[in-house]
Amino acid sequence: MTALACGVDVGGTKILGGVIDDHGTIVEEVRVTSPATDPDAIQDAIASVVLELKSRHEIATVGVGAAGYVDKARRTVMFAPNIAWRDVDLADRLEKKISLPVVIENDGNAAAWGEFAFGAGADVDDMLMVTVGTGIGGGLVLDGELYRGAFGVGGEIGHMRVVPGGIVCGCGKLGCFEKYASGSALVQQVRTAAPGDPRAAALIERAGGVVDAITGPMVTDLARSGDAFCVDALATLGTWLGEGIASLTAVLDPAVVTIGGGVADAEALLLDPTRAGFQAQLTGRGFRPELEIRKASLGNRAGLVGAADLGRH
Amino acid sequence: MTALACGVDVGGTKILGGVIDDHGTIVEEVRVTSPATDPDAIQDAIASVVLELKSRHEIATVGVGAAGYVDKARRTVMFAPNIAWRDVDLADRLEKKISLPVVIENDGNAAAWGEFAFGAGADVDDMLMVTVGTGIGGGLVLDGELYRGAFGVGGEIGHMRVVPGGIVCGCGKLGCFEKYASGSALVQQVRTAAPGDPRAAALIERAGGVVDAITGPMVTDLARSGDAFCVDALATLGTWLGEGIASLTAVLDPAVVTIGGGVADAEALLLDPTRAGFQAQLTGRGFRPELEIRKASLGNRAGLVGAADLGRH
Amino acid sequence: MTALACGVDVGGTKILGGVIDDHGTIVEEVRVTSPATDPDAIQDAIASVVLELKSRHEIATVGVGAAGYVDKARRTVMFAPNIAWRDVDLADRLEKKISLPVVIENDGNAAAWGEFAFGAGADVDDMLMVTVGTGIGGGLVLDGELYRGAFGVGGEIGHMRVVPGGIVCGCGKLGCFEKYASGSALVQQVRTAAPGDPRAAALIERAGGVVDAITGPMVTDLARSGDAFCVDALATLGTWLGEGIASLTAVLDPAVVTIGGGVADAEALLLDPTRAGFQAQLTGRGFRPELEIRKASLGNRAGLVGAADLGRH
Amino acid sequence: MTALACGVDVGGTKILGGVIDDHGTIVEEVRVTSPATDPDAIQDAIASVVLELKSRHEIATVGVGAAGYVDKARRTVMFAPNIAWRDVDLADRLEKKISLPVVIENDGNAAAWGEFAFGAGADVDDMLMVTVGTGIGGGLVLDGELYRGAFGVGGEIGHMRVVPGGIVCGCGKLGCFEKYASGSALVQQVRTAAPGDPRAAALIERAGGVVDAITGPMVTDLARSGDAFCVDALATLGTWLGEGIASLTAVLDPAVVTIGGGVADAEALLLDPTRAGFQAQLTGRGFRPELEIRKASLGNRAGLVGAADLGRH
Repeated sequence: MTALACGVDVGGTKILGGVIDDHGTIVEEVRVTSPATDPDAIQDAIASVVLELKSRHEIATVGVGAAGYVDKARRTVMFAPNIAWRDVDLADRLEKKISLPVVIENDGNAAAWGEFAFGAGADVDDMLMVTVGTGIGGGLVLDGELYRGAFGVGGEIGHMRVVPGGIVCGCGKLGCFEKYASGSALVQQVRTAAPGDPRAAALIERAGGVVDAITGPMVTDLARSGDAFCVDALATLGTWLGEGIASLTAVLDPAVVTIGGGVADAEALLLDPTRAGFQAQLTGRGFRPELEIRKASLGNRAGLVGAADLGRH
Repeated sequence: MTALACGVDVGGTKILGGVIDDHGTIVEEVRVTSPATDPDAIQDAIASVVLELKSRHEIATVGVGAAGYVDKARRTVMFAPNIAWRDVDLADRLEKKISLPVVIENDGNAAAWGEFAFGAGADVDDMLMVTVGTGIGGGLVLDGELYRGAFGVGGEIGHMRVVPGGIVCGCGKLGCFEKYASGSALVQQVRTAAPGDPRAAALIERAGGVVDAITGPMVTDLARSGDAFCVDALATLGTWLGEGIASLTAVLDPAVVTIGGGVADAEALLLDPTRAGFQAQLTGRGFRPELEIRKASLGNRAGLVGAADLGRH
Repeated sequence: MTALACGVDVGGTKILGGVIDDHGTIVEEVRVTSPATDPDAIQDAIASVVLELKSRHEIATVGVGAAGYVDKARRTVMFAPNIAWRDVDLADRLEKKISLPVVIENDGNAAAWGEFAFGAGADVDDMLMVTVGTGIGGGLVLDGELYRGAFGVGGEIGHMRVVPGGIVCGCGKLGCFEKYASGSALVQQVRTAAPGDPRAAALIERAGGVVDAITGPMVTDLARSGDAFCVDALATLGTWLGEGIASLTAVLDPAVVTIGGGVADAEALLLDPTRAGFQAQLTGRGFRPELEIRKASLGNRAGLVGAADLGRH
Repeated sequence: MTALACGVDVGGTKILGGVIDDHGTIVEEVRVTSPATDPDAIQDAIASVVLELKSRHEIATVGVGAAGYVDKARRTVMFAPNIAWRDVDLADRLEKKISLPVVIENDGNAAAWGEFAFGAGADVDDMLMVTVGTGIGGGLVLDGELYRGAFGVGGEIGHMRVVPGGIVCGCGKLGCFEKYASGSALVQQVRTAAPGDPRAAALIERAGGVVDAITGPMVTDLARSGDAFCVDALATLGTWLGEGIASLTAVLDPAVVTIGGGVADAEALLLDPTRAGFQAQLTGRGFRPELEIRKASLGNRAGLVGAADLGRH
């Protein structure tokens, strides 16, 4: 039997650690609040999560998933959008604290690997993972291997430009995919449209009358009960998502596209328009085998599980 | 010493065959006019080219590059845009005629492999080839392997959508990359703009006064002599090209992008604006290692050489 | 009582002449097939229509509406897209044949004036007419007067650019409004989408199985019976139309926008999405009085009636 | 001799009042700092400026120009973007304080009328004024009359949509003209591009090393001395400006377009690319008389002069 593996998913608001066996089953899970943006405090928090799990399990390896550019050696965070890591050898620092071999992975890559190894992509060799959250995260599994790019920073599908002269992105460029097809884009869209659309009355009421208090889950909840405004908002999001996936499919030709992130909980309300947008935009449709667009199956544990498994190799 | 390998590049107007040694050097080359769009005649022409070369060389394997969707087994052409091949087992048909093992490859993939194995990408593991011709062809070499996609039809970068609601593409969709950044796009652009632009006088004169007779080489020639209208036209093309490469780099993170096709002969007149467009649009620039954009080095023999070498494996 | 006025509407396939009284009521109407694109034959046909009507009625003035750029003096056709008129003093030529005073008007202007004087815009001072046909025709009535522009060529709203880098227009530019919101755009859209959309089965069957035989009226008919594919196609058209009207309203602030042309027969199937697209896109909505979007009421006689009435002044 | 007229231009940072004779010559001018956004204080400030001028001149009428939607009766501000006026009868309030007849005008309209009556458009009947400042202001003079629209809110050309899915505008919509072609757009563009472009070194140095301290006048100054980065930035702005004017010309067909606002001080550095963008995008170019694009001649006094003159009627 393979030894147990520890995975850590470093998110913006929480740090989630866990121990998995060789079937990807989570043996134990620990969650702590993330100490905001202080790099040292975050490193300490990661280490303490691992040490706590190590005290109760025979852990052989550690994998850590975090948002940012990770070098190809899987040790150094070159840049992180939300934490002040710049060319930090995070693996080295953590190994000194926890005395176990550590690898660092981009969070989108970790989630993709989780779904590929144990989730919605387990039956194919080529899978694109699209995580629809604050931004759009991506991960590519090609010919059965995680593809990181030449420098470790591939899979940033959220920054493919989809509208020249489009919405300003946090990355400084205009028209990035994630400004049209992420959970934040959904929220931004409904907040902008709601005041002028009588159909939005129920949504505004749900938000206590405060348009800026509208959240993604409110939209999904109301859409499930048939609210036309919210159904349309998810359909607009899904259409953009599917059209972007069509462009990515022209380039990558995966067998499965896995949709993760909180918005994916909307199920068919999101995925049906996504499939329709994809089919309407796919080049050469009808002359090529067609991929499947599936909901991710590991939920918000994909990153933890994927990071743990990647740490083994 | 490795045995000799035969490669055939099936183009729209000519069929180019050749024999290469294990350094990628072309030992002999044969060229015949392509019999237009008749599938049987084209198969016969390919076979006769190979048989002629086989009569003079110890050939062990044959690789054939052609425009179209080739299945992952590298035997069947599922669809070709210009020839009436629909799910044709071309490898089987050719093997019966020439009594040698045959593999079929997409022409963009073959060219990419040629540049990767023996040309401008020989020093890296991750390379994106962009062939700027009638359309835009693409080929991906990732982690040292040609990436064909789950179904064999990856790398069709020319059909990534770059303008929603954009120019109608031959594939039936709107706004495909190749409608903005191919050689045909260049010609279309200058023909449209020339009648209303006094700076285009020299170009129109070069075309005998007939705007619809303007060709890409005329634009490149005049640009080389400093003609402002033609310099600007190549710069517009290069900007679109570089911006598209920036989107592809967000996804793929290659170490080198190789620019091939006839328009690449414009050298810095095309490549400098391409690099500028790329840099202006690349997400995360400054926080990531930066790739090189290079001109392809094998010219129009990249497909032949790549197909031959791919046929060996 | 005012004398009777004669109006002629010169269309691509037919020439429609008529006599109206001072209430805009048509006393008699004559229709002949248009002699294609031969300028002299068309002039003769116009003259014979007028002479026939003149033989039976007391006509005092003649107004002729035609597609093209008409000079501000309302006599010379500077350019016509479908007929080889280039700087032709059409009023002079016709006056010599028919011995009545003649004015020439752009067809979009004539239709706008017809609706303003006797139709859907009779109750306001500021009206924008949008004719949704092969292209998009426009006509502006501002402060109660037909506005022709400084040189007589205003109101060409179909050539406002709505998508940079968009679909190539017959005028040579990219992304013109009429490539997204005209009847031709509708037909182009459904022909492109139909082959890949199972919901289009009924429409393709209606067209005898030939996608290129699909027409606008087929789409409207099926949409009326609830066909989802056709309903959606009209909604897409209406959305583009409404969004364009929102831009025009920012500039012009009319009290009424009148929608004419054959596609307007789809009634609410077109006009509801048009209004929704308009409202979603109108700047300052909620802080300004809001215009009405109405269907034109004179049908395909708006041009004839408007030309006749304009000929009186 | 006509009596003297008083004009007031209510800006974001200052209130400029003046007395003009019937040739548009300014007899005396008074300037006070604007009391920010307090509506009552602003009304008092306007009144005190007029009363001071009235104490020294025989003023018969007063015209006030302000940013916002003004009703067609020219008395009520329905909405102002920067001051808390909502359906305020400003004319009535001012008349009570100053005992003179008052009319209120939109500031873009006032500036347009100033240039038409006494400035760059004095020789034509149809003029479009484009004021390139924080946003883009517009004013239409058609057939010799100021055109206000059916409800008084026409001429808002800055909110014509030029990019579907484009940059978010302060008005809540995406892709408005002023997000691409205003002075603010210029500053936004250079601040975004400067950090990644070595050619921007001089501009960053001029701003004391602080990219967010770059201003429009810095760009214009450096462009005048030949700085390539700044020349290109103005050219990009001018191209967007000219392309937007081409769309407006399709609709309005003016004889002259007058460019005002601070960025217009860049003269040919802005206006040459504006003209080139216009010509490249104008529909039917070559078959229609062509308008002139001119720099405004009254500078920042156009609004004051125009408001004063409009107050006479």
